[in-house]
Amino acid sequence: MSRRSITGFSNPTVKAVRALREKKHRKREGRFLAEGLRLLTDARESGRIPELLLMAEGREGHPLLAALEAAVSAAGGEVIELPEDLLAKITGKDNPQAVAGVFAEWDAGLEALDREAGKLWLVAQAMRDPGNLGTMLRTADAVGAGGVILLDDCADPFSVEAVRASMGAVFTVPLAQARWEDFLPWLRAGPGQLIAASLREAVPYRGAPYAAPCFVMVGNESRGLPEDYEMACDLRVTMPMKGRADSLNAAVAAAVLAYEVLASVGG
Amino acid sequence: MSRRSITGFSNPTVKAVRALREKKHRKREGRFLAEGLRLLTDARESGRIPELLLMAEGREGHPLLAALEAAVSAAGGEVIELPEDLLAKITGKDNPQAVAGVFAEWDAGLEALDREAGKLWLVAQAMRDPGNLGTMLRTADAVGAGGVILLDDCADPFSVEAVRASMGAVFTVPLAQARWEDFLPWLRAGPGQLIAASLREAVPYRGAPYAAPCFVMVGNESRGLPEDYEMACDLRVTMPMKGRADSLNAAVAAAVLAYEVLASVGG
Repeated sequence: MSRRSITGFSNPTVKAVRALREKKHRKREGRFLAEGLRLLTDARESGRIPELLLMAEGREGHPLLAALEAAVSAAGGEVIELPEDLLAKITGKDNPQAVAGVFAEWDAGLEALDREAGKLWLVAQAMRDPGNLGTMLRTADAVGAGGVILLDDCADPFSVEAVRASMGAVFTVPLAQARWEDFLPWLRAGPGQLIAASLREAVPYRGAPYAAPCFVMVGNESRGLPEDYEMACDLRVTMPMKGRADSLNAAVAAAVLAYEVLASVGG
Repeated sequence: MSRRSITGFSNPTVKAVRALREKKHRKREGRFLAEGLRLLTDARESGRIPELLLMAEGREGHPLLAALEAAVSAAGGEVIELPEDLLAKITGKDNPQAVAGVFAEWDAGLEALDREAGKLWLVAQAMRDPGNLGTMLRTADAVGAGGVILLDDCADPFSVEAVRASMGAVFTVPLAQARWEDFLPWLRAGPGQLIAASLREAVPYRGAPYAAPCFVMVGNESRGLPEDYEMACDLRVTMPMKGRADSLNAAVAAAVLAYEVLASVGG
């Protein structure tokens, strides 16, 4: 198995990979970066093989790492060894997890979604925090959601922070990105109940008449959902807010609602 | 009302305040930094007045800002005006929210908690992510929790990130920090059901026999709870995990459980 070694920070490959931490470079290259053996193993087992595998010198051997390397080579990808401190500079983490991979981004259009694939879907509108977005992907995996739909100007699900927070779910959970004006006609072209947490004409979220496939929508961290988005919902639900604040963290709200819907419509 | 103006980055006050972004300086000074009119207003309405109020020059006037300034002056605190870019350097935010405050930290011992104050409590063990910690505080406010108890080596609840993620709940939700070996005797000295999400001899989290006051405990982001902590619980519950992963984000798990407990024992 052929491996290339890199020793210097000025190496063009190192520079190109490191640049993938910035959105503009990710979008131009159509590629993104993920790190850690567990994440990359989740990816491999989901059929996502990195085009480029970066391994720290002096790492401990591991059967999953060997399997990863074999899969990359079999798929015609490249394997590179480099000093640990160089890998740390690429991933921006003090303690890099010995391995990182560069993946080609995949298409994420509504047309690729199969709405029969899940009784429950998560929809994020203009969610700006990549950590929240990754956490929603992780929750979507946990509740067995059909997928996650990102509406309007969301954070990049392929950012290092989102990939990390997703704990691998970015590789396993179907993902679509769309504008509201395209999403709504798509939704209405088939079965699907759109719900949101709201204070407008809402019913208590416990025991609300959820129906599969149920699309749970949460909005921007600061502004929430636009009023017309809320009013387009089939069901608006309200969660108890017993303190001073009038809202939950967006990823938390999505999860509390999703688990309630799961208990109602089944997984 | 007297105000002092600061124009340079080398000013000792600016340096001292900026240093509060680091934990070692916060602990040495016993002070922390919070930013934004909404956060500082939550603090004021909860009786927490900053010792030092920093206001950007050229900000828009606002009745809440005037109320804040008056409260600081009345309490013998100091008000400082400074250029917006200087405030940005202090808070580390590109768009500072025109106002920031320096607060004295307060005592956070178990003995200050009143377990009759809430039917529901959140307990975080060795939680390392300040965003998760702040989010748990925000959730605790929302479910009307008696407070949040931080066990063992948690992230600092007074870090800028935790304060920000708490959306003001750090000022309003009672908080205690303790070691497990002190917490358990305190808990057992009175009524209190300790519960955790677990895979060990657990019952489904829906409809589990929750009893107030119920202490919902979640563990470290990577390692979860130590086994002996789980086994010390009165009730271990399990949440559906329908995907590849075997855990939720810690703040999400706490919230899903907390809302279930709330529905069971009432707020």
